[in-house]
Amino acid sequence: MSEQANPVLAEVWRGEFLECVHRGTAVVVTTSGEVVEAWGDPNRVILPRSSCKIIQALPLVESGAADAAKLTAEQLAFACASHRGASVHTGLAARWLAEIGLAESDLRCGVHEPGDPEARHALRLAGKVPDQTHNNCSGKHCGFLTANRHLGGGPEYIDPEHPLQKAVRLATEEVTGETVSGFAIDGCSAPNFAVSLKGLATAMARFATPETSFTGARATGARRLRDAMAAHPVLVAGEGRACTSLIRACGGRAVVKPGAEAVFVAMLPSKGLGIALKSDDGKSRGSEAAIAALLARHGALERTDPAYTTLADAPILNCRGYAHGHLRAAEALLS
Amino acid sequence: MSEQANPVLAEVWRGEFLECVHRGTAVVVTTSGEVVEAWGDPNRVILPRSSCKIIQALPLVESGAADAAKLTAEQLAFACASHRGASVHTGLAARWLAEIGLAESDLRCGVHEPGDPEARHALRLAGKVPDQTHNNCSGKHCGFLTANRHLGGGPEYIDPEHPLQKAVRLATEEVTGETVSGFAIDGCSAPNFAVSLKGLATAMARFATPETSFTGARATGARRLRDAMAAHPVLVAGEGRACTSLIRACGGRAVVKPGAEAVFVAMLPSKGLGIALKSDDGKSRGSEAAIAALLARHGALERTDPAYTTLADAPILNCRGYAHGHLRAAEALLS
Repeated sequence: MSEQANPVLAEVWRGEFLECVHRGTAVVVTTSGEVVEAWGDPNRVILPRSSCKIIQALPLVESGAADAAKLTAEQLAFACASHRGASVHTGLAARWLAEIGLAESDLRCGVHEPGDPEARHALRLAGKVPDQTHNNCSGKHCGFLTANRHLGGGPEYIDPEHPLQKAVRLATEEVTGETVSGFAIDGCSAPNFAVSLKGLATAMARFATPETSFTGARATGARRLRDAMAAHPVLVAGEGRACTSLIRACGGRAVVKPGAEAVFVAMLPSKGLGIALKSDDGKSRGSEAAIAALLARHGALERTDPAYTTLADAPILNCRGYAHGHLRAAEALLS
Repeated sequence: MSEQANPVLAEVWRGEFLECVHRGTAVVVTTSGEVVEAWGDPNRVILPRSSCKIIQALPLVESGAADAAKLTAEQLAFACASHRGASVHTGLAARWLAEIGLAESDLRCGVHEPGDPEARHALRLAGKVPDQTHNNCSGKHCGFLTANRHLGGGPEYIDPEHPLQKAVRLATEEVTGETVSGFAIDGCSAPNFAVSLKGLATAMARFATPETSFTGARATGARRLRDAMAAHPVLVAGEGRACTSLIRACGGRAVVKPGAEAVFVAMLPSKGLGIALKSDDGKSRGSEAAIAALLARHGALERTDPAYTTLADAPILNCRGYAHGHLRAAEALLS
């Protein structure tokens, strides 16, 4: 009854027992798409989910919409974010919408409970329900609205046939070097274009080196988006999130972004490398351990850094504070 | 780079893309330990975690401690519970401790935030922090304390060498028909004895048929524990939990119990069968889909029941309520 499967990327031990494993695929590539190393099949097609938000933001900066709206670096970082709906995030979304003369009701991302417990508590105390600014994708959608206003498109900007999403699709194909393998609709209602892990990693290698990988408005725009994420890690995710702590800990050596169902990508500017990985089971524990291990493997993170040890070499405590388990990246990613 | 692995138990689709899989091991056995069917290796040794709470409660009923303390069916169900820390649970824990003349500080389960959002909100409003009664294992520990008081053991009842845990170990070996393969310390500080999935399922088949599988105090005690769980599903887990909804939906045809890191077991009285399974990745989405599928496969649950469709054949909605994904048990468990 056993089957061929992807390799183990992370392990969970309790006492002497290997209690869980997270299998998946990971690839490290150069700007030309050359595979430096891979675990599993780098040609595996995946839905990047939110890991590709920096690609989805390209039309915003390349079209001139970002400059026309005088967007700040904070707003560009927020356009690439999967945030927790903390007040720092919802406040920025509300100000952004007001600046461009639009309203919360113009968003098409839908509503979900904020991830931030303080925000949830504040809503309950105020007798309020969350709105679309709490959606973890509201920054991306503020970016979509800003680009769409500039381009003069209709209000249903998340339609796959809308000019804005056609521009996202074209940008995706250009930066990955692939024809997209169709799409699915993401949790925020936007189309999410399927590409190979290798293609996604290639795009990240190019965002890591925009000056040499791109030209013109794309070179400038890609650089601004990447630097904005590096400069504002709390806006990209939130306090306590792996994404935020890894961007901080890497200190410019890498910029990272997760996507739903355990996708993680990294751009490594000084190495000219891109990384993309996915844990098969969608559990972020596995993808977070794996990305931390690969960042360390490629010199972007120290294995003594709390951002590393928390994600890739972490004790699992019982309810009285004693360590009886251990989460760690698989040996294959370390040696 | 591909490896031999366990079969897929559940799949997550988004659009036309198979986005995630949950691999694992599952086995259905008779009371004599005969394997009726298996996916993966039924001899795989696992930590049962909370799936074995009904075994851990055997010394409580067999010793006469439960009767001496005049425990109700509600308390016996609670002794087998992994609960959400809702007021119905913490209230019962507090009353139970008072009845046996002990205090919250006598518990050794430790503290964690309750899973129930109303309980979390109420604590914050009151400016309080959770205590040990909120621990999902507090019912088990009330049972441990009650048995320990009856047996006259020392206060550190969670020590693996304590007479109470030695009794749990002996009961585990007797009902599984195996010598335990060591132990690890669980999140609640109690030892958790490692057994094979087949052994765990064998124990569940015997709890399904205590009158014929056991004799004397064990037959009576096992029956009382199982019937208490069947009669009080909210006390065993909580509203909205898979365990509670499956026990309700099965209506006596099966009693189920999950354990941490995606273990699930079932007792099927009318069939004289036991089921045990574990999703390799520890994600409950996979183990819940698989147990629902196996309950349906063995006539304990209709595939049209909301308890089934919610867990094993469920649309995944985006934030505007449209279905763009689907969670389902693997075909191998259905056909």
